[in-house]
Amino acid sequence: MLDEELAATIRERLRTSTFARWMGMELLDVGDGFSEMRLHVSEHHLNPGGIVHGGVIATILDSSIGVALRTRLDLDRTHVTVNLSIGYLRPLRVGTMVARAHAVHSGDRIGYGEADVFDEEGTLLARGTATFLVVPRPRSP
Amino acid sequence: MLDEELAATIRERLRTSTFARWMGMELLDVGDGFSEMRLHVSEHHLNPGGIVHGGVIATILDSSIGVALRTRLDLDRTHVTVNLSIGYLRPLRVGTMVARAHAVHSGDRIGYGEADVFDEEGTLLARGTATFLVVPRPRSP
Amino acid sequence: MLDEELAATIRERLRTSTFARWMGMELLDVGDGFSEMRLHVSEHHLNPGGIVHGGVIATILDSSIGVALRTRLDLDRTHVTVNLSIGYLRPLRVGTMVARAHAVHSGDRIGYGEADVFDEEGTLLARGTATFLVVPRPRSP
Amino acid sequence: MLDEELAATIRERLRTSTFARWMGMELLDVGDGFSEMRLHVSEHHLNPGGIVHGGVIATILDSSIGVALRTRLDLDRTHVTVNLSIGYLRPLRVGTMVARAHAVHSGDRIGYGEADVFDEEGTLLARGTATFLVVPRPRSP
Repeated sequence: MLDEELAATIRERLRTSTFARWMGMELLDVGDGFSEMRLHVSEHHLNPGGIVHGGVIATILDSSIGVALRTRLDLDRTHVTVNLSIGYLRPLRVGTMVARAHAVHSGDRIGYGEADVFDEEGTLLARGTATFLVVPRPRSP
Repeated sequence: MLDEELAATIRERLRTSTFARWMGMELLDVGDGFSEMRLHVSEHHLNPGGIVHGGVIATILDSSIGVALRTRLDLDRTHVTVNLSIGYLRPLRVGTMVARAHAVHSGDRIGYGEADVFDEEGTLLARGTATFLVVPRPRSP
Repeated sequence: MLDEELAATIRERLRTSTFARWMGMELLDVGDGFSEMRLHVSEHHLNPGGIVHGGVIATILDSSIGVALRTRLDLDRTHVTVNLSIGYLRPLRVGTMVARAHAVHSGDRIGYGEADVFDEEGTLLARGTATFLVVPRPRSP
Repeated sequence: MLDEELAATIRERLRTSTFARWMGMELLDVGDGFSEMRLHVSEHHLNPGGIVHGGVIATILDSSIGVALRTRLDLDRTHVTVNLSIGYLRPLRVGTMVARAHAVHSGDRIGYGEADVFDEEGTLLARGTATFLVVPRPRSP
C-alpha cells in the first residue's frame, strides 16, 4: 500500500509538470513500486521515417520507472537516473502508448526498475531498465 | 570523405523534420561516420527537479548516433535503433547542449555508434551507445 | 510446447559444452521461450573483493537468455549476442546461483530476452537483457 | 601521473587474483584513469558455436574498466559495478584479446568508464561501458 500523502505528491508533481504537458504524457496510475503512464502520439513525435522517435520512448520509460521507484523513497530523499538501457522491439506510427513500470530493487543508494511500453492493443513495443542513484533532497532555498 | 549527395540528403532530412523542430534540435555538422547536433534548453525540457529530462538527452544521443551511422549506409538501405544505453554523468539546468557522435562499427546487418553530450563549456554530461539494425529501405508508394 | 527434438538438441549442446563445464554451469530446465541454468560458486569465481565477479554473472545471463531465445529459432538458423546490459543489485559470496530467462521478442531478424539471477534463497542478485541477431546457420564443412 | 603506491597495489591485486589466473587474464598496463588487460583464448573460452563466449568478453570489459576507475579512488574507498552494457561487434575464434579501458567520469558517488576489446591485429571486437558505485571500504577484521 502506497502512503496516500506520497501518492498525492507524485500525482501533483506530474499534473503540474511543464515537461509532461509538452511531451503529451500523463500519469494513469501509481501504487507501491508501480506506475502507469500514457502518451498520445502526435505528428511531432515521429522521426523522418514516420515512426515514433526512440527518444520519445526513452522519455516515457525513464519517467515511468522514476515514478515507480519514487514510491519507495522517503520524502527527504530524491534520485537521479544514472543509467538507462532500452530494447526497441516494434515501431509505432499512430495512436497511444502506455508504459507500465515497476521497482525491481530499492536500496539505500541504488534503485533499479524496469518498464514495458505497449500500444493500444497491448503489443509490446519496447522494454527499458534504469538505474537510479538515491541522494539527499536539496534543501529548498 | 562523405559523398556530397548523401550529406545534402541528411541535412535536408533534419532541416525539414517536424520532430527536430519541436525538440529544438539542429544538425551542426555531418561527415563520414560523424555528426554533431545541438539543442537549446527551454523550460519545457526540464523535469520537476529542474534539470534536463533524461529523455531529452536520450533523444539527442539517439538522433546524433543515427545520423553518424547513416553516412555509412547505401541509399537503398535504412536502419532502426534496436538498443540504446545511456550513462548520465552530470545534470544540466540551462543553456545549450551539443552531442558529438561517431560510428564505431558499420556492418551489413548491424551498426554501432556512440555519442557524447557536452554543455557549452565542454563538460561531459552523458555518454550513450546505440545498436542499429540495417534493413532494406521500404519502397515509396 | 517445445518441440522434443529441439529440446534434446539444446540439452545435448549444453551437456557437452567445454565452456559450460569449465564455468561450472548447467542447464536445469528448458521450455518454449524459457530456460533455467545453475552455477555453483567456487573460489575462482570471486574477485579480489571476495564477491562473485561481474563477468561470471554476465556469463550465466548471456547463456540463459541465449537458450531461451534458441527455443524459438528454426533449426536452420542461429543467433549471436549483439548487446548485453546488466543491472547488478546485490553481491554473492558463496553458494549457488540460478538464472531464469525468457524470450520477450522473437523476430525474424532480432531476438530480445531477459533473465534474473537469484541466490539459493530466491533473493534477486542481478537482472540482464540481451539483444540477439538472427542469422542463417553456417553450413557444416 | 598515477601514485606509485596505488599502482603497485593494483598490480599486486591482479597478480595474486585466483579469478584472473583461472580466467587466463593479466594486467598489461595501468596509469591514471587507464588500464590494459590481456586474455589468451583457450578451448574452454569458446561457446558451442566456436566463438569466444560473450561472458568472457564481459569479464575482461568489467575488469579493465574497474581497474581504470580504481586508479582514481582514494585507498579508503572501493567500488562495485552497478551496470554493465556491452556491444558485441565481431566474433573471435582464436588468439589473444586485449582490452583498453579508461575512466570517463570519476565522481564521489558514481564512476563511469568504458573499454574496447581488440584482437591481435587491432580489430575492434566489442565495446563496453560500466557504471560503478563508490562506497567506503569495509574495515579489515
